[in-house]
Amino acid sequence: MKTSSQQANVGVVGLGVMGKNLALNIADNGYHVAVFDLDEQKVADAAAQELAERPSSVSSRMLACNNLSEMLNNLTKPRVIVMSVPAGAPVDGVCRSLINAGIEADDIVIDTGNSLWTDTVAREKQYENNFIFFSSAVSGGEVGARFGPSLMPSGDKAAWQYVAPIWNAIAAKVDTKSGQPIERFEPGNPVLEGEPCTAYIGPAGAGHYVKMVHNGIEYADMQLICEAYQLLTEALGLNAKEVADIFESWNQGFLNSYLMGISAEVLRQDDPLTGKPLVEKILDKAGQKGTGLWTAVSSLQIGCPAPTIAEAVYARAISTQKSLRMSLKSHLAGPDVKSVSAQEKADFIDALEDALYCAKVCCYAQGFQLMAMNAKEQGWQLNFAEIAKIWRAGCIIRATFLQSITAAYENDAELANLLMADTFSSELSTKQMNWRKTVSASIMSGIPAPCISSAIAYYDSYRCETLPANLLQGQRDFFGSHTFERTDKPAGEKYHLDWSAKTRVLLKV
Amino acid sequence: MKTSSQQANVGVVGLGVMGKNLALNIADNGYHVAVFDLDEQKVADAAAQELAERPSSVSSRMLACNNLSEMLNNLTKPRVIVMSVPAGAPVDGVCRSLINAGIEADDIVIDTGNSLWTDTVAREKQYENNFIFFSSAVSGGEVGARFGPSLMPSGDKAAWQYVAPIWNAIAAKVDTKSGQPIERFEPGNPVLEGEPCTAYIGPAGAGHYVKMVHNGIEYADMQLICEAYQLLTEALGLNAKEVADIFESWNQGFLNSYLMGISAEVLRQDDPLTGKPLVEKILDKAGQKGTGLWTAVSSLQIGCPAPTIAEAVYARAISTQKSLRMSLKSHLAGPDVKSVSAQEKADFIDALEDALYCAKVCCYAQGFQLMAMNAKEQGWQLNFAEIAKIWRAGCIIRATFLQSITAAYENDAELANLLMADTFSSELSTKQMNWRKTVSASIMSGIPAPCISSAIAYYDSYRCETLPANLLQGQRDFFGSHTFERTDKPAGEKYHLDWSAKTRVLLKV
Repeated sequence: MKTSSQQANVGVVGLGVMGKNLALNIADNGYHVAVFDLDEQKVADAAAQELAERPSSVSSRMLACNNLSEMLNNLTKPRVIVMSVPAGAPVDGVCRSLINAGIEADDIVIDTGNSLWTDTVAREKQYENNFIFFSSAVSGGEVGARFGPSLMPSGDKAAWQYVAPIWNAIAAKVDTKSGQPIERFEPGNPVLEGEPCTAYIGPAGAGHYVKMVHNGIEYADMQLICEAYQLLTEALGLNAKEVADIFESWNQGFLNSYLMGISAEVLRQDDPLTGKPLVEKILDKAGQKGTGLWTAVSSLQIGCPAPTIAEAVYARAISTQKSLRMSLKSHLAGPDVKSVSAQEKADFIDALEDALYCAKVCCYAQGFQLMAMNAKEQGWQLNFAEIAKIWRAGCIIRATFLQSITAAYENDAELANLLMADTFSSELSTKQMNWRKTVSASIMSGIPAPCISSAIAYYDSYRCETLPANLLQGQRDFFGSHTFERTDKPAGEKYHLDWSAKTRVLLKV
Repeated sequence: MKTSSQQANVGVVGLGVMGKNLALNIADNGYHVAVFDLDEQKVADAAAQELAERPSSVSSRMLACNNLSEMLNNLTKPRVIVMSVPAGAPVDGVCRSLINAGIEADDIVIDTGNSLWTDTVAREKQYENNFIFFSSAVSGGEVGARFGPSLMPSGDKAAWQYVAPIWNAIAAKVDTKSGQPIERFEPGNPVLEGEPCTAYIGPAGAGHYVKMVHNGIEYADMQLICEAYQLLTEALGLNAKEVADIFESWNQGFLNSYLMGISAEVLRQDDPLTGKPLVEKILDKAGQKGTGLWTAVSSLQIGCPAPTIAEAVYARAISTQKSLRMSLKSHLAGPDVKSVSAQEKADFIDALEDALYCAKVCCYAQGFQLMAMNAKEQGWQLNFAEIAKIWRAGCIIRATFLQSITAAYENDAELANLLMADTFSSELSTKQMNWRKTVSASIMSGIPAPCISSAIAYYDSYRCETLPANLLQGQRDFFGSHTFERTDKPAGEKYHLDWSAKTRVLLKV
């Protein structure tokens, strides 16, 4: 283990995939970083990788610590410590260990795990006498962590001034003019130019809430691409590589995104064991870490319609029930498979591209509305134009599309729903017939498209000046005397019909 | 206030709509009931109604109490006290007041409010040294409470023996041969014959969990009928009374249900103020008490696919956003309205009847699977045949349809999903083309049918031996190294492709 008389600027506790890569990223940007993990092997691996990746002209910037006291002794004050441990009990474990090791009130601990945002709010209060519990959600996976993640920091505003320079340095960068990511995945050669994909989000919990919603949108984004893959293979009989070609082609257009690009790569990949398309050898049971689920739960609790995000979560759940699916397959009938002409194929592909775009807009509309409604409840001032900006690089949902979202919010910061923005309402209005044709075709072919179809129901519901909830309110008043408002009376005035009486009288309640 | 030297058998605390009606029901069945409410007016109202409704030959069976001590002093032991107060703090308020008033360890307090099931589990433990915290969910609204509700009791098994005779007496009854409700809504003339719609559900929380899921199904059931109403009025140009006729006709067939019947009544009702159909004067903003939401949240947390139930909850949320809908209407384009021939009308109505049935089966499949999955986690032994039986009368979702569910579980108590039951898989297989035509028509007409369409995606997903979650797992491995299982390797073996390497190697993790 190397020691250095130079004081370290930043500590990193937790050297799993994310923590280690964050530490290396911080070191690449010229900071001296003190690292620790309960697992000595992880500490050794991090130090070894720093040695291997550091330019020969540069001396070590990583101090491998034996324990947290050593880390605290070697950090400049106020200390800034990045924590990268699994959400839940491990976070509190590290906090307590830091307290035992002598952390001080002005020191800043940054929780970068996928913690539940309400836990973050609670912890800021819980540890307020011991240190400043700050947090920053991180998106971009291990490559992002290493070379430039999207960072969503939140917490004590004064603490941000100590975190900001580091965060601005290590975050992903976008070209100021084009808004495109500047990607250079070279150890020791960090991207120094461009706009960093990070910004102070708000009070404790806000950053993690935004990341949670990002993940909910991510689930839906991924599910939409998967539905397209199933439609193209099963309705049109295309193989994996042909779908990869289509995805590559779509990736040059309005569906351009990191996820579209990697989906093409995955579909193009042959299985090293059998030589067949790898995707056909991957078991179709989706895993999940829970954040998409949290987003759906939050939307239900707040009363924000986010059905398409929820359908994406449920789609993963259905995929895990593979044995039930295999049992049901022979019990449940579907339509006969129809053959498709070349022209029909081409039309279907074009219509599907439009359908995907429309459904995607709806997913983002749901996510952004959710953030707005929760911010209102929590008293946060979220800057949605900025949030869309910092998602342009580093994070999993990065896409050209996000620029339209930024533009929409820069035009009107108080947008109630993205569908209100001209750019989106006009695009969807233009594309909606192709969207309908796609969903209709999927249903008549017996191929499930839960998100693409949920999204059109969402779109059409919002087009309705009157929804059949008037009948619903009548039903509720009938069986439960729950009362209703009238279309021709002031809002808030409640009425009840005396349904069980011989002569039914309308009562103002 | 009347007093009586006769000891009361049952106490009732909380004399709102539900509590008062339960108390009157209990009295009708020959029990002496001691009642109390913090609101003296409610106590007076209950006593007055008992006086008015009691047959002249019968002396008072209701003891109006001034406080809880008086109630405890007048109850035979072990005391059985029915609590009917709003969920949350009021429940604990009454419990503490009973403790202060001298309740004893063998006494039984029955929470009949819409409490969250996990609160019930916690309270059983919290109060275990003071009294037996029992619970019973109640369905059927005020009419049900008065003349025969569906009751879902759970908690300490030994306590059930004291509750059962009362519960069996006051519950709704079904005819043993036909399974049809025996409904006689006459004060002083309770239904004494038939099978009572109540049964011990399981340990603390189980009854309230089952009621919660009942309400989730209820939300979906109601939403399906509303979607049908919107389709019939907007796609076919029918008026409210014409739809009422169709609902009445459907109510004679396989869609027979209490909800279908009352929906026809609501649609047939003219507004006393204007003479127009009342439904058109009811504001289309749906209210909710939260239980359907809890069901959706539970399904997400457990990993049970219940998308159609969730869509029904979201549909209510969208309805509350009326001003946003009114703003968006002019921004979002839809298809032109098409005219429909008489034959097309008739075909549409028949197809819609089939579609509603199919979607309804899916909602029940989701609800019952949810109960099964939670029961497994909680270690409950739920009897689904019995649960379907006790829902046949008294409760809001009562329907002939439930008998098919009972039959399915009597045939196979371990059914993984109702879609596996022959009766349902064959019905859905027969009706699915009409289902598809209906959803396709709704989409091409621009009329939202979120639940009917979500249900077909659910059905089609379960028909898939392979879902595109294989691509999803590939995406997750690509950006997050989350690993995947292989179709040709044993379950549980995890693999990872080294996506970022020049030569991509498959690694067994």
